[in-house]
Amino acid sequence: MSAHITGTTRIVAHLGVPTEGFRSPMIYNPWFAARGIDAAVVPMGVEVEDFAAFLPLLFRLRNVAGALVTMPHKIAAAALVDRAGPAVRICGACNAVRRAPDGALEGEMFDGTGFLRAMEARGRGAAGASALIVGAGGVGSAIAAALAGAGAARIALRDTEPGKAEALSGRLGTHFPATRVETGAYDPAGFDIVVNATPLGMRPGDPLPIEPARIDPGAFVGEVVMGQAETPLLAAARAKGCLVQAGEDMLYEQIPAYLDFFGFPGATADELRAVSRLQP
Amino acid sequence: MSAHITGTTRIVAHLGVPTEGFRSPMIYNPWFAARGIDAAVVPMGVEVEDFAAFLPLLFRLRNVAGALVTMPHKIAAAALVDRAGPAVRICGACNAVRRAPDGALEGEMFDGTGFLRAMEARGRGAAGASALIVGAGGVGSAIAAALAGAGAARIALRDTEPGKAEALSGRLGTHFPATRVETGAYDPAGFDIVVNATPLGMRPGDPLPIEPARIDPGAFVGEVVMGQAETPLLAAARAKGCLVQAGEDMLYEQIPAYLDFFGFPGATADELRAVSRLQP
Repeated sequence: MSAHITGTTRIVAHLGVPTEGFRSPMIYNPWFAARGIDAAVVPMGVEVEDFAAFLPLLFRLRNVAGALVTMPHKIAAAALVDRAGPAVRICGACNAVRRAPDGALEGEMFDGTGFLRAMEARGRGAAGASALIVGAGGVGSAIAAALAGAGAARIALRDTEPGKAEALSGRLGTHFPATRVETGAYDPAGFDIVVNATPLGMRPGDPLPIEPARIDPGAFVGEVVMGQAETPLLAAARAKGCLVQAGEDMLYEQIPAYLDFFGFPGATADELRAVSRLQP
Repeated sequence: MSAHITGTTRIVAHLGVPTEGFRSPMIYNPWFAARGIDAAVVPMGVEVEDFAAFLPLLFRLRNVAGALVTMPHKIAAAALVDRAGPAVRICGACNAVRRAPDGALEGEMFDGTGFLRAMEARGRGAAGASALIVGAGGVGSAIAAALAGAGAARIALRDTEPGKAEALSGRLGTHFPATRVETGAYDPAGFDIVVNATPLGMRPGDPLPIEPARIDPGAFVGEVVMGQAETPLLAAARAKGCLVQAGEDMLYEQIPAYLDFFGFPGATADELRAVSRLQP
């Protein structure tokens, strides 16, 4: 099944460049078709220097329902939207834009939402939990914001780049004062949730981002690295009994949040996986 | 069959507003799918006040192959393109835009091409012929330009709006000095080709735009009014033995010209009709 574009079709633009690696059309469009929704994701390869001018004009089109924003435009988008939630302000990045009824552009960031939803689907909530997040870049910031927003009691941040974890700690504190944030932690022992938000594990021979021997067997271990069934970190964590979560789980779980944001509620990650035309 | 949009899909934007009545996606997209061409027509509802800013930015996108331009942007497009053929300059309107390798925007106008190709498919050429065109607006101008470009010896123009036929006559003369152009003719007698390029015939009870009794039985009679099997003018002309051509014929015959212009050569009107998802 696939979407039939007509004059009434609402467009969700996928903005980024290059477009060749985009996966969203092969996930969203079969879902729209399966549900009989007259909408389609359309890749648009916007150059960096055109993004600021193109984004507001795109949202002046009568048949645009929203925009997915990917590399290299996420940071620029955060600065261009008129309104944004705390995740956007904490990450300094935005991966979804819609136009509000008053004409204002609203931005959101759903990477962290995807991680949280996938975790909750496995029975692990964030409320009152302690979490170690290794990697304080874009996706680490998004996950930290989502866990703090869901009531995590304590978040420890670690990054090899000096000052990065501390800067994220400051932004988190501004928006979520109820969550205790620490930096400089290197030991995963005693944490309920342990997250690799670095690219380590993407290439064979990468060092482990976290020492598995020190992870509690009852901990939940999540990963952002995609494109492989199980990273060495997840394999080691699973071997000692931890509940684990792969990068792809985060991907599929964030799509219902995007769809809902654009005005298409009710999707589930399982349903999206079932209709997806992506190679598994 | 229908197009599967992916990250490598080339986009042909259909620019106009409102988009609801657009028919191009239901003709072009099934053809792309049938031919295995990774491209899709995507309607974009551009507001009048945004068109001048949007058009150049659209063509900066890496995956845009071209733009179909319809109401209300055709006249604005003619003024915005960097290069245009004689049909655009004679009509003052443009319904197809592409980006040349040097970055320049090139405009074309294929309404007249469609009429001419459909006529030629019926065995009636324009070279050396005489033609009466009633209606000197956008589509009448386009047909006049196409017939003159194909070597018509004599073209007579008629319009109820004072000065309109004379103005078109002047523009035709500039680009096609070899064609004799007359205005003020009201009698279809003696013309090889007779064209209704007015909206008369669209609604029941419309007066006939041309007196059928005075049309030569050997004449070719063409029509631009669409949406009905046969207008009263065509019915009367056919009854007296004329070769006739409906508005829809012009529509399907111009699409191969658009496709070729955008870099997708080799389509035929018959093939497009066969795969079209338009209701017949």
